[in-house]
Amino acid sequence: MATIYEKMTTPELTLALEKLDTQVELTRAKHLALDMARGKPSPDQVNISRPLLSILNEDSDLIDEGVDCSNYGCFEGIPSARRLAGAFLGVPAEQTIVLGSSSLNIMQSVLIHYWEKGVPGYTPWSKLDNVKFLCPVPGYDRHFGITEDLGIENIPVRMTPTGPDMDQVEELVANDDSIKGMFCVPKYSNPTGVTYSDETVRRLATMKAAPDFRIVWDNAYCMHDLNEHGDHLMNIHGVAATVGNEDRILEVASTSKITFPGAGIAFFGSSEANVKEVAKTLMVGLISANKLNQLAHARFFPTIEALHKHMMHHAEFLRPRFQLVQKKLSEGLGDTGCATWTDPNGGYFVSFDSQPGTAQRIVKLCADLGVKLTPAGATWPYGRDPHDTNIRIAPTYPSLEELGQALDVLVLATKTVCAIKALEDRE
Amino acid sequence: MATIYEKMTTPELTLALEKLDTQVELTRAKHLALDMARGKPSPDQVNISRPLLSILNEDSDLIDEGVDCSNYGCFEGIPSARRLAGAFLGVPAEQTIVLGSSSLNIMQSVLIHYWEKGVPGYTPWSKLDNVKFLCPVPGYDRHFGITEDLGIENIPVRMTPTGPDMDQVEELVANDDSIKGMFCVPKYSNPTGVTYSDETVRRLATMKAAPDFRIVWDNAYCMHDLNEHGDHLMNIHGVAATVGNEDRILEVASTSKITFPGAGIAFFGSSEANVKEVAKTLMVGLISANKLNQLAHARFFPTIEALHKHMMHHAEFLRPRFQLVQKKLSEGLGDTGCATWTDPNGGYFVSFDSQPGTAQRIVKLCADLGVKLTPAGATWPYGRDPHDTNIRIAPTYPSLEELGQALDVLVLATKTVCAIKALEDRE
Repeated sequence: MATIYEKMTTPELTLALEKLDTQVELTRAKHLALDMARGKPSPDQVNISRPLLSILNEDSDLIDEGVDCSNYGCFEGIPSARRLAGAFLGVPAEQTIVLGSSSLNIMQSVLIHYWEKGVPGYTPWSKLDNVKFLCPVPGYDRHFGITEDLGIENIPVRMTPTGPDMDQVEELVANDDSIKGMFCVPKYSNPTGVTYSDETVRRLATMKAAPDFRIVWDNAYCMHDLNEHGDHLMNIHGVAATVGNEDRILEVASTSKITFPGAGIAFFGSSEANVKEVAKTLMVGLISANKLNQLAHARFFPTIEALHKHMMHHAEFLRPRFQLVQKKLSEGLGDTGCATWTDPNGGYFVSFDSQPGTAQRIVKLCADLGVKLTPAGATWPYGRDPHDTNIRIAPTYPSLEELGQALDVLVLATKTVCAIKALEDRE
Repeated sequence: MATIYEKMTTPELTLALEKLDTQVELTRAKHLALDMARGKPSPDQVNISRPLLSILNEDSDLIDEGVDCSNYGCFEGIPSARRLAGAFLGVPAEQTIVLGSSSLNIMQSVLIHYWEKGVPGYTPWSKLDNVKFLCPVPGYDRHFGITEDLGIENIPVRMTPTGPDMDQVEELVANDDSIKGMFCVPKYSNPTGVTYSDETVRRLATMKAAPDFRIVWDNAYCMHDLNEHGDHLMNIHGVAATVGNEDRILEVASTSKITFPGAGIAFFGSSEANVKEVAKTLMVGLISANKLNQLAHARFFPTIEALHKHMMHHAEFLRPRFQLVQKKLSEGLGDTGCATWTDPNGGYFVSFDSQPGTAQRIVKLCADLGVKLTPAGATWPYGRDPHDTNIRIAPTYPSLEELGQALDVLVLATKTVCAIKALEDRE
């Protein structure tokens, strides 16, 4: 689709650019300092979890169903936290491990283990000539970083409104044994907000792949609905088990965006065999995780319903921000043809696509005008967005007022870069 | 030195064994269930840290010198916790990283990093034909486990009353470039309780070694004096820097045996260059550590003096236990020649050496009589104690009464096995 600037005559376009330039200079004069780069809850939002800090005090009972949470032991996590993890991830409590605060750290540890030792029964990945991972794009730069750091080749696969392009995925994994894994954020994907359809989940769980192919099922946002009835995500463990693929699924999540970022508890859930093997491996480098934090969390969320209620409280902060993104972008860019963007029902991000070859310039112009965005390209492996279109919008941290200003700048920058490009293209 | 049993005539020895057997059967009839295996503080001792749990509550200020501890960020740790870490480890605060609860986990992450990528400027250890680590013995099985897991060869070196045998260490590292590191618990070593002398520290810091040789300086017990004036340990960083070896020292510690086992905060301290490089590496798998736990700890210990005072409170629980070990062993075995043992001024363990070829049988007899000990051999790499003499005594967890009973059993088992062996040897 042609943009409004492409459709203009050259004198019209020159005039439009002059007007945009004037707006740019007026905006620059405001000396803004706004940040729309970070997937962080706002301070007010974080504060709703403060009662968690009063759960334990010096007089508390520190025993959880017979386990002393104040001393070493109980590597797999305390019983009540594992029950919560099971309800959270959709596996029996015995198929979970509850660890420290970081799910990223769990993913890395497990992948390093397969790199060094291999999936049980198979060659260590480090001993193979090529190891590749599939990375749905746009995706999460921290995922790509873990595999890149190990020397695993990240292969982008296209995201669609129902999840990764499964025709592409199936064809790749069926014909290339060196593809050993795939990153998935199946609900409210980072940054598109897409939730995988039942068909996508089913195909991922059952498709033909290398026997030591593993899916990192990062369910970071499985509880992060913006409304009471969020997207439905099929339980992948059940489908995988029907064809004997239960070992394929490595699910992780944490409460970082539920209670305190960086200070929550993290979950691992998988098959019985994987949980046993992963626990044995992680024990080499850890005596036991912080069980007092597990206890505080398990008492703060005695049931998964209590957790869901807490998430609805979070949604009160997030809903108006996500609504403002849609409003500002629709009003500012809706009839320009300059960009498209997603409208998710949950999660932490909106994915924004500008015209090919403009994302870096838009991010740079925003920065010049005092609005920090996630670097263009960050949503692609190696930071290389081949069409230079994708920008991740993180609307959660700024106040509504700041967010509105930042979005105005993004709209202005998008239109300006789009108009400049239209002029360049005809020169 | 000959044991009393070796000196007996055969009829005397047979009679002595009959008496010991009677005692064994009387003990067996008690159906004891005691545990002297675990380096854990007793529940009463742990309770002295309970006020830490009241430090933060829902109304607390969660800002530490400008850092919001309730949200992401500040990877290296919050300012006040890094200051504590610096005072703890004897390096400037800027040369520390404060992480989650486990120092073992930090050691493992750093060694995996060198394994995968190499010490900066040198070949990754995984690409070398041989990689070896020196392991002072008796030592800590968890250390040996990290290197064993990576496929690094663990080479035992003899402990002396002033630390590892430095003549042996210097000769080994000077002539073998494949020796890439060494584990040290420099103060109140696990399990001997030995504190390295100034000369040992100086030689370790300055000796000729491979340029990518690293010392894991696990200062787990640096604050764990049994008395007001504990052993003196020289600051190794200062000595190392005088000869440009400051990158050699990787110091770690945690508050696991200061506040809550498994739920403390862990410290890394090294040269400026190492801290920068290690932080960059660890960031691949961690967004930020649990800063709320760091904040609670930093407020609980506003100064290193406050921490020292807390440790003197811990010592009140530990002192009578360590005294009881000396009393029971001296009274029971002092004139038998059957065993020797250490008498440390701090730490968590006493190292016990029986006659060659008896440790496994002693541990087994103790188990038969209801007293669990650390498995014989655990203090050696691969669990192989070549002379089968060493047993680690962990006196901290049981009550004084239970500890006394357990030590009586150890004395009886040592004498019994020693007498049986004397009889066997003359048959």
